Amino acid sequence: MKQSPLQIARSWYMPKIPTIFQTHVDIVEQTFIEPNNDKEQIQDIFPYTYGQPLIKFKAGKSKEYPQINVGVILSGGQAPGGHNVISGLFDGLKRLNPANRLFGFIGGPGGMVAHNYTELTKEIVDAYRNTGGFDIIGSDRTKLETKEQFDKCIEICKQLNITAIVIVGGDDSNTNACVLAEYFKQKITGIQVIGCPKTIDGDLKNEYIETSFGFDTACKVYSELIGNIQRDAASSKKYWHFIRLMGRTASHITLECALMSQPNITIISEEVAEKNMTLADVVDDIVRVIIDRGNAGKNYGTVLIPEGLIEFIPAFKKLINALNNLLAHNNEEFSALKTPDEQREYIKGSLNTDNLAIFRSLPIGIAQQLTRQRDPHGNIQVSLIETEELLIEMVAKRLAQLKAEGIYKGKFAAIPHFFGYEGRCAIPSNFDADYTYTLGYTSALLIANNKTGYMAAVQKLSEPATQWQPIGVPITMLMNMEMRNGKMKPVIKKTLVDLEKAPFKYLESKRRKWAANHSNFVYPGPIQYFGPSEVCDQPTNTLLLEHNKSL
Amino acid sequence: MKQSPLQIARSWYMPKIPTIFQTHVDIVEQTFIEPNNDKEQIQDIFPYTYGQPLIKFKAGKSKEYPQINVGVILSGGQAPGGHNVISGLFDGLKRLNPANRLFGFIGGPGGMVAHNYTELTKEIVDAYRNTGGFDIIGSDRTKLETKEQFDKCIEICKQLNITAIVIVGGDDSNTNACVLAEYFKQKITGIQVIGCPKTIDGDLKNEYIETSFGFDTACKVYSELIGNIQRDAASSKKYWHFIRLMGRTASHITLECALMSQPNITIISEEVAEKNMTLADVVDDIVRVIIDRGNAGKNYGTVLIPEGLIEFIPAFKKLINALNNLLAHNNEEFSALKTPDEQREYIKGSLNTDNLAIFRSLPIGIAQQLTRQRDPHGNIQVSLIETEELLIEMVAKRLAQLKAEGIYKGKFAAIPHFFGYEGRCAIPSNFDADYTYTLGYTSALLIANNKTGYMAAVQKLSEPATQWQPIGVPITMLMNMEMRNGKMKPVIKKTLVDLEKAPFKYLESKRRKWAANHSNFVYPGPIQYFGPSEVCDQPTNTLLLEHNKSL
Repeated sequence: MKQSPLQIARSWYMPKIPTIFQTHVDIVEQTFIEPNNDKEQIQDIFPYTYGQPLIKFKAGKSKEYPQINVGVILSGGQAPGGHNVISGLFDGLKRLNPANRLFGFIGGPGGMVAHNYTELTKEIVDAYRNTGGFDIIGSDRTKLETKEQFDKCIEICKQLNITAIVIVGGDDSNTNACVLAEYFKQKITGIQVIGCPKTIDGDLKNEYIETSFGFDTACKVYSELIGNIQRDAASSKKYWHFIRLMGRTASHITLECALMSQPNITIISEEVAEKNMTLADVVDDIVRVIIDRGNAGKNYGTVLIPEGLIEFIPAFKKLINALNNLLAHNNEEFSALKTPDEQREYIKGSLNTDNLAIFRSLPIGIAQQLTRQRDPHGNIQVSLIETEELLIEMVAKRLAQLKAEGIYKGKFAAIPHFFGYEGRCAIPSNFDADYTYTLGYTSALLIANNKTGYMAAVQKLSEPATQWQPIGVPITMLMNMEMRNGKMKPVIKKTLVDLEKAPFKYLESKRRKWAANHSNFVYPGPIQYFGPSEVCDQPTNTLLLEHNKSL
Repeated sequence: MKQSPLQIARSWYMPKIPTIFQTHVDIVEQTFIEPNNDKEQIQDIFPYTYGQPLIKFKAGKSKEYPQINVGVILSGGQAPGGHNVISGLFDGLKRLNPANRLFGFIGGPGGMVAHNYTELTKEIVDAYRNTGGFDIIGSDRTKLETKEQFDKCIEICKQLNITAIVIVGGDDSNTNACVLAEYFKQKITGIQVIGCPKTIDGDLKNEYIETSFGFDTACKVYSELIGNIQRDAASSKKYWHFIRLMGRTASHITLECALMSQPNITIISEEVAEKNMTLADVVDDIVRVIIDRGNAGKNYGTVLIPEGLIEFIPAFKKLINALNNLLAHNNEEFSALKTPDEQREYIKGSLNTDNLAIFRSLPIGIAQQLTRQRDPHGNIQVSLIETEELLIEMVAKRLAQLKAEGIYKGKFAAIPHFFGYEGRCAIPSNFDADYTYTLGYTSALLIANNKTGYMAAVQKLSEPATQWQPIGVPITMLMNMEMRNGKMKPVIKKTLVDLEKAPFKYLESKRRKWAANHSNFVYPGPIQYFGPSEVCDQPTNTLLLEHNKSL
């Protein structure tokens, strides 16, 4: 198996860990804590795992730990650092008792249910240290929620003598982990469940979990590319680059990339929703900056667009719902129409006035995309809508009008980009390599101390890794009740961008300046692994600002 | 002006230079050399600059050089390292005589004609050391070819007392440099002209010029992204990624990226042309690999597609010509048609049988793109055709047929990508930073030794920088006669991928293996600037193989 020089060099990296982990540790149980909302319902649903204390660690004495077997699952979308959760977990387990064994379930939660597994030996783990990807054991999006699934999990654990499972995943997967922990405890199986906070989207965070892993690396990869494109724009002075960034619902990735690269225009979905903006309002905001720059002779720039934007525009969401409804009830009739023009006319004839107005305002290509890209259930796949193309076409149309009126004097040529898959499996930054290794190591300690229904977490992440404070957080305290498929369910709350907090406030205070002049562009460059610490070990700007540090 | 930590750290980098430049040097004139073809015509066209010797350098004694003023122009598309040509030139000039001055013409060759310039002081040059982009003085695509332009150039040189110009550009710009040198010499202006080989496309190379600058960095940026995407494909096992890469006509970038990342499928335009393949043949080649992998349960992989592909498919080229012709003569009538369907029918009614067959085989979206994206002259813009989308749709259609026939048993879902602007202005790799600095320094020495009509070049580029051999190449000897706009013109030959040479041969020998198994994927990771030399200072694989080194 051929490896690149960086792969080889990087395999030798020793993740930095908190000083506390350089010795033997004991756990310290903090006072009992509760969720912020819906306490009673959550207590009712989780009688066995509710009401556990926060866990911290302190230096302790050498101790004998009984031999155990542990299983690990990677769940959901890839995030840089998943492999280091596994190596940290492996090293932690081996340090506690060299006879401990680690099993990996192949192909995510679905693999556990199907009893697909492999033992993760030192040889295998060593081959994946500090690498990107989830390919060591793969992943899937199976939700563990039925009794049948739970019992299949118990079955394989009994078979392999596994007494603890670590689930590496996002908000949904950690909700699952909690449900599983509750079931296992209720059934007195003796199987513990520990979760680890993963997602490049950055929306799994709260007062205890400072950030999810992978967010740092993914944002740095995207920012490298945005910076390169900005330098190109500032050099050729010919193009506006409309750059859509992955990140699902929340705009954390777009916000962090904006803080790193200082583009001319940044759209934050949460702000669009807060201001109840229409698509035309979003277009007008962009157009204003382009006119100001164009009339000053600057016919180039960058616009960052969060993937989830469309879902935050109320009127657009209504159109999508109407189309889903229409196609669900008339799919056969619609599909029988031969040409795109006929399909378009059919749709126009079926929408109400408001929805029709929006549909008419869309460029033909995008309108076609809406009805062409549907998921297996027939629903429009909003994440596949090329919002960057949509905005380019609408901005171009508006600018052409304003040019005819003599208001706009510039030239407009735009290039669309979408970045997502480029960052999900990147080689983890030092931050993510260290953070995930520490999460894995923390998971081993929580297991060894008989905890279940906990998430491993790390605090003080904006300090050097040696000063980080690993903790264990009872998952029930992160929950609230939300409507899912028509039923109230306990779930971990997704955290959207908070318009009152420092990261957005910083953007808000600077964006007028950044809009005007490209000399504000920042060029982050590629992630560095070997250089000076200020280049290689910086956490995200989001984290620095949230911790009241200056950029 | 805010800078990223890497920008700040990188500004301190001292480019490595050939040992020979660490002391005083004299030039050594080698024997007189001639172009390989069209000697007589070229001698006729360039009577003043034809027949000059190749220049090498040897250690010499300290010497006094008279004070001079020099001008520099960046020409054409951006390439990483342009700023270091300028800093190498600046440092070289100052070392020869601290009173020497450097002027930059703003906005490329057009800026020189328009007399836009700035003096490049130490303060300005220092701010741009080791950075990407051409924004220090900008660039454009103006061709210098008329007597009026030449005389405007002479005028500004006289005004600023400039006695030498350095033109940083690709094959066309260096052809221009030679024409200018000839004119200046003929007119006894005393103004020298020196060229530097720039282009990320890698097609400006020959027996004297081993590679153009920027190719190394751009390929490394694209390979980082390809590697990340491959790790994603190998992790989620769900998608085929179709990745189109910039590079104009030649496939050098695609070939180098394939050597770095070992994708499942690599299309090389030059091979497609050599084998006289149709679009259907290209699709079939891809489909064969997808079927083999799909039937083995591997429904994922990567396909690299060179930007210039379509122009190498003879039948497709004919269709484009026919459409250009049709629209040139009937544009008004065509534009009056209201809907895409009407336009499509109109075109179908006007094509001959062969062209109609190809047009019909195209997905509707691509067929629409062909007639929608036209340049100011009304011609179809081939480089804007989304070949990756075209191939995805055609491959999907073919696979659906083969699935119905029971031949294909897999699932096919594909994601398109295009990488270009992400790499043209990246922070130059150590290789490009060192190489361009050396080119600039070499230019200063060629000027100080009264040379004109030369290109600065460096040999032994696959050795450590200390062992590099800077040379001066008479531009006339790189020329041949080619048809341009109906006339035979002397031009520097564009070098396409040579199917008989080591880089392609290596791909050819490995691709069957790479097609089969993702464990052959290589993950190059981001460009590193500070780590071990084998990670940070490697030249391209293309260069290594061309120099008979092993990968």
